[in-house]
Amino acid sequence: MNRSRAVRLLEAKLGPSKVLSEGAGLDAYVTDDSGFPGVVPDAVVLAETAEDILQTLAIAQETGVPVTPRGAGTGRTGGATPVFGGIVLALTGMRQILEIDRDEGLAVVEPGVVLADLHHAVEREGWFYPPDPNSAATCVIGGNVAENAAGPRALKYGPTRDYVLGMDAYLMGGRRVKVGRRTRKGVTGYDLTALLVGSEGTLAVVDKIALKLVPKPEHLLTFSLQFARTEDAVSAITRLIATGCVPRCAELMDEATLEVMRNAGNPTAAGANAMLLLEVDGLEAACEEQAERVAEACERAGALELLVAQSENQRSKLWEPRRHMSYAVRRLAQHKISEDVVVPRQRLGELLTGVRALGERHEIRALSYGHAGDGNMHVNFFWNDEAERSRVDAAVADLFRLTIALEGTLSGEHGVGALKAPYLPLEQNDELIALQRDLKRVFDPAGLLNPGKIFPTTHRAC
Amino acid sequence: MNRSRAVRLLEAKLGPSKVLSEGAGLDAYVTDDSGFPGVVPDAVVLAETAEDILQTLAIAQETGVPVTPRGAGTGRTGGATPVFGGIVLALTGMRQILEIDRDEGLAVVEPGVVLADLHHAVEREGWFYPPDPNSAATCVIGGNVAENAAGPRALKYGPTRDYVLGMDAYLMGGRRVKVGRRTRKGVTGYDLTALLVGSEGTLAVVDKIALKLVPKPEHLLTFSLQFARTEDAVSAITRLIATGCVPRCAELMDEATLEVMRNAGNPTAAGANAMLLLEVDGLEAACEEQAERVAEACERAGALELLVAQSENQRSKLWEPRRHMSYAVRRLAQHKISEDVVVPRQRLGELLTGVRALGERHEIRALSYGHAGDGNMHVNFFWNDEAERSRVDAAVADLFRLTIALEGTLSGEHGVGALKAPYLPLEQNDELIALQRDLKRVFDPAGLLNPGKIFPTTHRAC
Repeated sequence: MNRSRAVRLLEAKLGPSKVLSEGAGLDAYVTDDSGFPGVVPDAVVLAETAEDILQTLAIAQETGVPVTPRGAGTGRTGGATPVFGGIVLALTGMRQILEIDRDEGLAVVEPGVVLADLHHAVEREGWFYPPDPNSAATCVIGGNVAENAAGPRALKYGPTRDYVLGMDAYLMGGRRVKVGRRTRKGVTGYDLTALLVGSEGTLAVVDKIALKLVPKPEHLLTFSLQFARTEDAVSAITRLIATGCVPRCAELMDEATLEVMRNAGNPTAAGANAMLLLEVDGLEAACEEQAERVAEACERAGALELLVAQSENQRSKLWEPRRHMSYAVRRLAQHKISEDVVVPRQRLGELLTGVRALGERHEIRALSYGHAGDGNMHVNFFWNDEAERSRVDAAVADLFRLTIALEGTLSGEHGVGALKAPYLPLEQNDELIALQRDLKRVFDPAGLLNPGKIFPTTHRAC
Repeated sequence: MNRSRAVRLLEAKLGPSKVLSEGAGLDAYVTDDSGFPGVVPDAVVLAETAEDILQTLAIAQETGVPVTPRGAGTGRTGGATPVFGGIVLALTGMRQILEIDRDEGLAVVEPGVVLADLHHAVEREGWFYPPDPNSAATCVIGGNVAENAAGPRALKYGPTRDYVLGMDAYLMGGRRVKVGRRTRKGVTGYDLTALLVGSEGTLAVVDKIALKLVPKPEHLLTFSLQFARTEDAVSAITRLIATGCVPRCAELMDEATLEVMRNAGNPTAAGANAMLLLEVDGLEAACEEQAERVAEACERAGALELLVAQSENQRSKLWEPRRHMSYAVRRLAQHKISEDVVVPRQRLGELLTGVRALGERHEIRALSYGHAGDGNMHVNFFWNDEAERSRVDAAVADLFRLTIALEGTLSGEHGVGALKAPYLPLEQNDELIALQRDLKRVFDPAGLLNPGKIFPTTHRAC
């Protein structure tokens, strides 16, 4: 058997301590935070060095066994799930921050560095690494690069792609190419760095990720606002940006989300059906000036209530409901699925009205919150009984069709993974999908690197 | 002959008014602003619609004749030069701004829109499109996308890539794929938009370019500073950024450039060997606060003189020498070549010292200025006599080797084009170049789209 040969070769080359090949330990690698059902892998490689990556990809190619690269497994679309078994290449053991260049504003990290650890390390030096997905405390940079992770601060600062300058990329078969550079600017050759960011581990496994840093904002103000209507909240953001003030976050919680908050003991204003969390940052005088504009824009948009955090403690309090929402809503039902569609910001009202309607139509509880400034909403559907699953699937498909009709896109930051792969043709035509498959083939001719992701499949890869 | 057949087919399909196929008119398409010697094309297509692009690429593929897409021809590396003749696909006739969405902060443009026209159009609506290459008054967006153009403001705002959300991409043979999206965020599938930006017209011809806008900064301050040493000027930038203030521009002029300025009647401070132009922008209070930090950082770095523009008129005056430098230095000699290498900012001192040394070694006049905040310098070499050309080539090769030794990259914003293609292997190894050639082949199997660019060639494409 190829697979047992692959396991034997891995043990021989890497040493048995780096290769899990039997026992309950393998079960921890079957799925990720999406719950997408994968297959128990034949082996898990606990990579500690780049050489381990190289050997694994060489052996996988030689034996024709698929490899699923894996960070912390916090992904929401099954991207790190071995849907065809084979080898899981676990990168969390490669967790060194190799360099922080204080003068240049640059960090070089291994793929297994926990995002929060990077945040703390660079902030101690006066620098700032903006991407902040909700899973920051546990997710790792390699996964962030694979998914082009974003988070609330992307509104002002952009997603992971905007910070990755260069990387060592390991291709199937065990070839290494250095893509990109250490400088903040550069256009020599094709932008392979940008192509690899967000490629969901299907093109290469990366190491020595050079990240651009920005100065740590020295001041930060947090506002919590409540509105009678979603449209008013969206109008507040649009008005604010039109004054020249781009907040670093503009998080929206819909009516159903507010109800969950109220049930958890968080008071909301009378008549409130939408809530906004806004943050502005920068130099101190700039924050004060922005605060005035926030107040004015929100008042004009009809805010029912405006709270400003006066201390770090208050700031945490304002954020608490939003930060815990992803976990809090899990208690609403046995199962939930969290989508992350994006529409032009001006069409958020239509999106949320549509979500309410399709929830009613399919009799599925729905609730939305997310990065409204970017038009990126996490739409959650809940169910208790597997019998309801077909109605959930119909609701998800309707959500995607609605998103496309509103000139939106299926994923803002979670990626396509295994979960959304069947829906890709709703957004992209055959020609575009074929072009991407052709590009994939250049990197991975046999289709062994993270198969079953992004592209719709009807048969097993091996 | 294939070529005459291609011309006949073009005339038949597009109508003779859109096809130049003889006469002196063709000569205008032989080179671009680099002066790189191309070949008189067999035909120039004056495209007016997307259908014209499609037909041209279909006929080129069918007849095996190369196509060189062309914007305004302001490129510095021969990217728009038909090095093998064939068809030049001129896109300056497609110059409609198709849409400016005021609420969303989005513009959709054809490739032939002049950058300055876009600047004015969006600024009238309170928005801002940051990329500002020196040729803004004449260059076009299609060329900016092809080269991933940047300019001084890229220090704070990033290059063209950071603003392109999606496009219609026309591939060889006449296939159209829509890449990217209209939303500000999105990770569905591979980031083909980012791959196409900066691909120098070798992968696709683009139309309907959707561009992200940012609010127009309502306030702007311009500073001119002089220093005794390059290192002091660089230290001023580093100190300033460390205070949390990222200027939107930080332009450096070296000793030789200052001499040109002095000779042109612009006074400089006694003992000055380096000059900085700094700009900060944003809300008014933020600019005032930034101005204090500029003054403090520059004083600590040993600035000899600091001027602040108090009016738009003064602002123009401070910029004048820098803006006209690219043209002013053309008068220094019969010929000049302008490189645009990038090094980590902290190594700019070493770069400029090295440039001086290699100018002396090869007895070639050299002069450097550029976007110091990004570490991106335009290094110019001058000569009068073709007999000197081999010494210039040796100086350029030495410059590139120095750049790589300083952990830099060969091009920050001009691209590789035809001029730098022979030097690509100094920065990228065979494996990386082969990978890019393979990607190129996916888009353009016969190698007919803008051949002779980026990759070193030893023989004609057809």
